[in-house]
Amino acid sequence: MPPAPPRPGQAAAAAQAASRFALAVDAMGGDGAPEAILDGVELAAERHPNARFLLIGDEARVGPALARRRRAAAACTLRHAPDVIGGEIKPTLALRMRNSSMRLAIDAVASGEAGGVVSAGNTGALMALAKIVVKTLPEIDRPALAAIGPSARGDVVLLDLGANVQCDTRNLVEFAVMGDAFARAVLGLTAPTIGLLNVGTEEMKGDERLRQAAEVLRESHIGPNFRGFVEGNDITAGTVDVIVTDGFTGNIALKTGEGALKLMRDLLRQVFTSSMPARLGYLLARPALDRLREWMDPRRYNGAILLGLNGVVVKSHGSADALGFAHAMDVAMDMVTHGFQDRIREGLARLSPAAAPPPIEPPRLASAGAGR
Amino acid sequence: MPPAPPRPGQAAAAAQAASRFALAVDAMGGDGAPEAILDGVELAAERHPNARFLLIGDEARVGPALARRRRAAAACTLRHAPDVIGGEIKPTLALRMRNSSMRLAIDAVASGEAGGVVSAGNTGALMALAKIVVKTLPEIDRPALAAIGPSARGDVVLLDLGANVQCDTRNLVEFAVMGDAFARAVLGLTAPTIGLLNVGTEEMKGDERLRQAAEVLRESHIGPNFRGFVEGNDITAGTVDVIVTDGFTGNIALKTGEGALKLMRDLLRQVFTSSMPARLGYLLARPALDRLREWMDPRRYNGAILLGLNGVVVKSHGSADALGFAHAMDVAMDMVTHGFQDRIREGLARLSPAAAPPPIEPPRLASAGAGR
Repeated sequence: MPPAPPRPGQAAAAAQAASRFALAVDAMGGDGAPEAILDGVELAAERHPNARFLLIGDEARVGPALARRRRAAAACTLRHAPDVIGGEIKPTLALRMRNSSMRLAIDAVASGEAGGVVSAGNTGALMALAKIVVKTLPEIDRPALAAIGPSARGDVVLLDLGANVQCDTRNLVEFAVMGDAFARAVLGLTAPTIGLLNVGTEEMKGDERLRQAAEVLRESHIGPNFRGFVEGNDITAGTVDVIVTDGFTGNIALKTGEGALKLMRDLLRQVFTSSMPARLGYLLARPALDRLREWMDPRRYNGAILLGLNGVVVKSHGSADALGFAHAMDVAMDMVTHGFQDRIREGLARLSPAAAPPPIEPPRLASAGAGR
Repeated sequence: MPPAPPRPGQAAAAAQAASRFALAVDAMGGDGAPEAILDGVELAAERHPNARFLLIGDEARVGPALARRRRAAAACTLRHAPDVIGGEIKPTLALRMRNSSMRLAIDAVASGEAGGVVSAGNTGALMALAKIVVKTLPEIDRPALAAIGPSARGDVVLLDLGANVQCDTRNLVEFAVMGDAFARAVLGLTAPTIGLLNVGTEEMKGDERLRQAAEVLRESHIGPNFRGFVEGNDITAGTVDVIVTDGFTGNIALKTGEGALKLMRDLLRQVFTSSMPARLGYLLARPALDRLREWMDPRRYNGAILLGLNGVVVKSHGSADALGFAHAMDVAMDMVTHGFQDRIREGLARLSPAAAPPPIEPPRLASAGAGR
């Protein structure tokens, strides 16, 4: 994948000056750690030649691996962390492990030493640590998980993807403001369009919570770019740049879409191996098919972003390879260098009191605990 | 598409003897009515040579069109209906139009004159009329919309698809029982496996409503085939035969999956027209690609079924062509001839009091109105 297109560099310079390290990287998280992580850092160091990374992990394992990678070795400072948070560890236990690689990486963001953190480790632990150590922005009720996906008209931002199984009007409105800031910083859009995911586009569709959120958004500063309700098929149609939904629906929409694309890929593989003419046909169409494969490559969309915190926190897929991990680092770099945190604060400040959700909010289900 | 495989005919014979007509067909609903509907009936008459259909619509328009189709003319009795429920008519108004083709078709099911009804008309009107005229089964709290979709391991039943934007534990349990009966009758499975859609497979995932529904299902007569929670990607993976969810999530999952498949189809079309070698490659792989296209053809999956009523009600897509409408009629025929109504009553009767949901149900959001 080509490096991210250059954008005005002032914010970048300012952000990098503010922190000693652009990013802290958890070298021990994910299935292929530390090798796959370091391969990713090597790619990221090439793409972002002026960035410094704080690499955190078991010195005895990470040190020699780092020494074998020229660019990564030049870009990184290695900090020892004796512990690793395994994939099966519960968030409550992870919170007590104060010397884990993930914890020390997150500490570096909380202290301002690094602009952001990237980890391919345990999702629940990362979310819990991020919320407790980096902390939620004071204006935000709940952070949200966001990701970028492919559509017929370019990249689409979808949030929440599972941080909040149940959401109220206020959460949805805040997700829209965060998604808007994210699309500006990472997709480089000047006026991203926004839609609320619903079961129809008419104003009376869905529940009260959705209708209220739509009303608040219409009156807010992002009103001119708010396109009202969108439906499931609008995600890949690219009808809007940012699609806002609760974490339950977003998680299921994301995985359903991924599943449908996987089914299609698997069936195409069967088609192109089903006969000799089909094999030959594949060879002839291969350059174009390879471009399609590259464009749809899930690695290009790796990186779930926890939005609404006092710092940039990006979760890479646990099974990401070098390309995937480097992409998660790209997303974090875009957020750090294009002033995502400033943009989100501006957006929240502009949610004027007149546009704020009404004081009496719709009742929430009793068991509102976030499910991951 | 080949006709539905023959299955034991006793139930079929009994069901057809009970009603004078196998199906009542609304000849005036949908974008291409009455021509597309009649083309579909012509195909259905060929596939179901012993079935009689009650065709309802404007005699002056439908009569001559029917006369031009030999098989349909032989299989149908035409009944005049002076009115048509247009696509924009609100359900409340549709309920007052007592001589519409849709109303008279539904009346024929309510009176027992026909075993089921198929319409490509206004969805909201059809659902409202069906609930009020055909009526919900006494054991059922709320009917659900179901559909069949493709997966890597055969057809999958998904419900609810939007009849109930909000659902409680009882609704989800009843949807599972209805989905089980439907998969037995229409997919011909002897022990369909069932999953509850959630944001993770672990027992503590999701909200209280989902966890309670899982508990009730585990203890119920379908417990041995209940596979617990499944995720969005399990829909197309074919992990289970029946996937149960609330109407909000189901509607969005269905449309998101359809959207992802459409994106892939559109991109493949671009790939195969992008260069001369790619065009030639397409020609070579074409027989296999055509088989894939045929297998994934949305027309093969046309027909949303309103389950939980005192009769079989199937909604065809408004833009369905002859093949699509004939498929919706196939689904309705399968339900009528394979005793779906009996199976669902048996299933509900076996939901023993011990397995019934606890009397104190989780609070529902205040605005529980179904959104379509």
